[in-house]
Amino acid sequence: MRLLFAVLTCFTAAIHLAADGPFSQKTLDHAAKLRELGLKDTRAYSLVESLTVEVGPRMAGTPADKLAVAWAEKKFREMGFDHVAAEPVPVTHWVRGPEHAWITAPYPQVLHITALGHSIGTPPEGLEAEVFMVPDLATLKKSKAEDVRGKIVFINHRTEKSRDGNTYGKTVPGRAAGAAEAAKLGAVGVVIRSIGTDSHRFAHTGVMRYEEDVKRIPAGAISNPDADMVQAQLERGKPVRIKMKLDCKLLGTVMSANVVGEIKGSALPDEAVIISAHLDSWDLGTGALDDGAGVAITMAAAKLIAEAGVRPKRTVRVILFANEESGLEGSRHYVTTHQDKLQNMIIGVESDFGADVIWRFDTRIDEAYLPVADAIHKALEPLGIARGSNRAFGGPDMTPFRMMGVPVVSLLQDGTDYFDFHHTADDTFDKIDPKKMAQNVAAYAVFAFLAAESPDGFGRIPVTAGSP
Amino acid sequence: MRLLFAVLTCFTAAIHLAADGPFSQKTLDHAAKLRELGLKDTRAYSLVESLTVEVGPRMAGTPADKLAVAWAEKKFREMGFDHVAAEPVPVTHWVRGPEHAWITAPYPQVLHITALGHSIGTPPEGLEAEVFMVPDLATLKKSKAEDVRGKIVFINHRTEKSRDGNTYGKTVPGRAAGAAEAAKLGAVGVVIRSIGTDSHRFAHTGVMRYEEDVKRIPAGAISNPDADMVQAQLERGKPVRIKMKLDCKLLGTVMSANVVGEIKGSALPDEAVIISAHLDSWDLGTGALDDGAGVAITMAAAKLIAEAGVRPKRTVRVILFANEESGLEGSRHYVTTHQDKLQNMIIGVESDFGADVIWRFDTRIDEAYLPVADAIHKALEPLGIARGSNRAFGGPDMTPFRMMGVPVVSLLQDGTDYFDFHHTADDTFDKIDPKKMAQNVAAYAVFAFLAAESPDGFGRIPVTAGSP
Ligand SMILES: [Zn+2]
Ligand SMILES: [Zn+2]
Ligand SMILES: [Zn+2]
Ligand SMILES: [Zn+2]
Repeated sequence: MRLLFAVLTCFTAAIHLAADGPFSQKTLDHAAKLRELGLKDTRAYSLVESLTVEVGPRMAGTPADKLAVAWAEKKFREMGFDHVAAEPVPVTHWVRGPEHAWITAPYPQVLHITALGHSIGTPPEGLEAEVFMVPDLATLKKSKAEDVRGKIVFINHRTEKSRDGNTYGKTVPGRAAGAAEAAKLGAVGVVIRSIGTDSHRFAHTGVMRYEEDVKRIPAGAISNPDADMVQAQLERGKPVRIKMKLDCKLLGTVMSANVVGEIKGSALPDEAVIISAHLDSWDLGTGALDDGAGVAITMAAAKLIAEAGVRPKRTVRVILFANEESGLEGSRHYVTTHQDKLQNMIIGVESDFGADVIWRFDTRIDEAYLPVADAIHKALEPLGIARGSNRAFGGPDMTPFRMMGVPVVSLLQDGTDYFDFHHTADDTFDKIDPKKMAQNVAAYAVFAFLAAESPDGFGRIPVTAGSP
Repeated sequence: MRLLFAVLTCFTAAIHLAADGPFSQKTLDHAAKLRELGLKDTRAYSLVESLTVEVGPRMAGTPADKLAVAWAEKKFREMGFDHVAAEPVPVTHWVRGPEHAWITAPYPQVLHITALGHSIGTPPEGLEAEVFMVPDLATLKKSKAEDVRGKIVFINHRTEKSRDGNTYGKTVPGRAAGAAEAAKLGAVGVVIRSIGTDSHRFAHTGVMRYEEDVKRIPAGAISNPDADMVQAQLERGKPVRIKMKLDCKLLGTVMSANVVGEIKGSALPDEAVIISAHLDSWDLGTGALDDGAGVAITMAAAKLIAEAGVRPKRTVRVILFANEESGLEGSRHYVTTHQDKLQNMIIGVESDFGADVIWRFDTRIDEAYLPVADAIHKALEPLGIARGSNRAFGGPDMTPFRMMGVPVVSLLQDGTDYFDFHHTADDTFDKIDPKKMAQNVAAYAVFAFLAAESPDGFGRIPVTAGSP
């Protein structure tokens, strides 16, 4: 009897809380329905299959990038989105040609190399020099010019696995700034241990940056087993020489597009929740995990909301950004060209971390609205999603939005294996688990629906820069 | 008290059996010592590191093949083997050049391809044709010439995982005979789904054979994810076209060598136990698993016997065969040139299935000697090795020996992951676990020592052919 009383008390309390919370029971019931429907979703899996098979790699500025834009517009229209648009964006067009490298001494070996994005090429006959190895970028910065001059710098910095991807942040500066720092000391080229957590012979590409007034030198990444090989030869105490031939170049600026698809809100259609991904990919794989998965998850989640019978008050806007990979060009352009509408963008999120399960919900909103976020989290919790901090990153393409004060959330995916495939030829459709992908669709649908139903949005966050 | 009695009975029975069995307790104690020392072995791991780093890929007939022969001779001498020799063997020399393939229609995509060993190349401008897909070789054989003529045949036969590798035998006929069977029906080329159990973008090479009086057409393998791609495009119902450029050719016959290292027997030095591996590898990886591991395991096991203080009665002969990969040329040549000595080869084994743990001991000996094999098995059992059948394969290079009546054993390694890496660029040193490799050294040392101590050898097995 006492137990029954306790159960009844809890039950009453729960209903009472719901009635008092930011969402009506009816709204929460519909969120629960979306969650269940999402877990059965197969549309996202089909979408990423279609994108990877019918378009494949779609590096910004390439003909396939245009195919991807056309693909996205067509899919949005076929799925009956209320508003579909391809908004033109100028993007940097860089191309990769054949790429080869070898250890030429003391023990000749083939190396699996790939040029870093935006690298210049080598002379057609190749570039050969002795190797100078450093364990990381910090050590390179402290190295003496007399040791580095005329050499190819090898940044032998291994990326460890992590669930949240924090380890990527430790090694990626070597990829971005290695060439500039090496050139300041007179190096003729840079080779990095791939920013990747696998032990397969795939080199991981990714963008790098030259500095103004610093000589531009070619930069490539070699696979982990190849980095082991260079290291093993160096450990034998003899000078090691590398020859590399990279035939890549920057072609200037061409047009691409951000592709937008909207499910219009029933009461406040001008206010929008943004769920996003990036449409471009690197050229080596078919961009299944990065970021075909995000494209598919966000499109499928919005479509699920549209077909589940209850239109939320506000608009759910899916944005598939152009050229995330080499400079967030699509999202920067979007924020710049929609500056007058930023106040109506109540919150945003990007899915750009593969297709593994979502395990944590982070927010970055005005603290006054945390109870609303917590109520959304309660609806996500049955999916195995924990409540995280109020310091969400939001995803790379949310950076320009965040800087302008737009609140963001992160639906953090398990990234333990993400960097096994990231930016390699091995980022292909077979790496996606349809069950895990459906959990993502469920989470995005629940989040987007409830955020669009929130009483008053999520306020604004501090602006961190005058312009994106 | 009854328990103690039972224990004592067992103990006495065990001693009694040992005294009555083929080996003295002293010999069994030394075998146990070798087992313990073997489990601590690090020499094999160092040897395969050395071979992969200082020689690397060593395809038969290439300059690196000669380096490998010199490496093996030098290592045998450094380790103090009693007799070291490089016995010349003529080998087929085939070379691989650049290789590329694409789907050109309906949805252009890059394919990761590698030529099959001994394939002819395509014309320099490439070979482009519509794809005709078959699920396996058997279906190809039953296909109609009118369906195949002028097309590139795609044999889409997936290799499943298995511990003993039996699944390899199901798909490998498509690799070996696919080109000939396709050419009989008028095909212009063949592409197979790689004989590999991974889902990474590595194409798996391996030898193929043309038939006399059948037109020679180029043959390549594409990785599993690429095979998925071709299949997915075909499933859309439109004709799929592939273009392939393979720049490979047969260069004729050049000299290589079988490298032999012996630990001489104390009483019957002319009689030998053969433990073997193949020194050559494919050109794509560094031949760590196939067959650097076997080279290292057998060398280290023999050295362990030499340094453990008790010389067995008979010689332990390590043979590192030339060109196993494209025709068992070294082992055939060895048997042909040592035909008069075959009677003195009391038993043989080859390690050529990677570096995972040994789990089963098979024999193929005269049945009268099975008690001796069972006694050897008892010494292997503490390593987790089960007793298998008397229908051992022995390893590919034991085939010519077996055919001539030489008894063989198999120390079967767990092959579950072997075909993930087999014949790919990804067969590299990082794939080897030093602990598992040490278990192999322990097993080989125990087997070789006890076999060399056997009272009267293992008899002969039926001769299955007049010549190897
Ligand atoms: Zn991305
Ligand atoms: Zn990326
Ligand atoms: Zn082999
Ligand atoms: Zn092999």
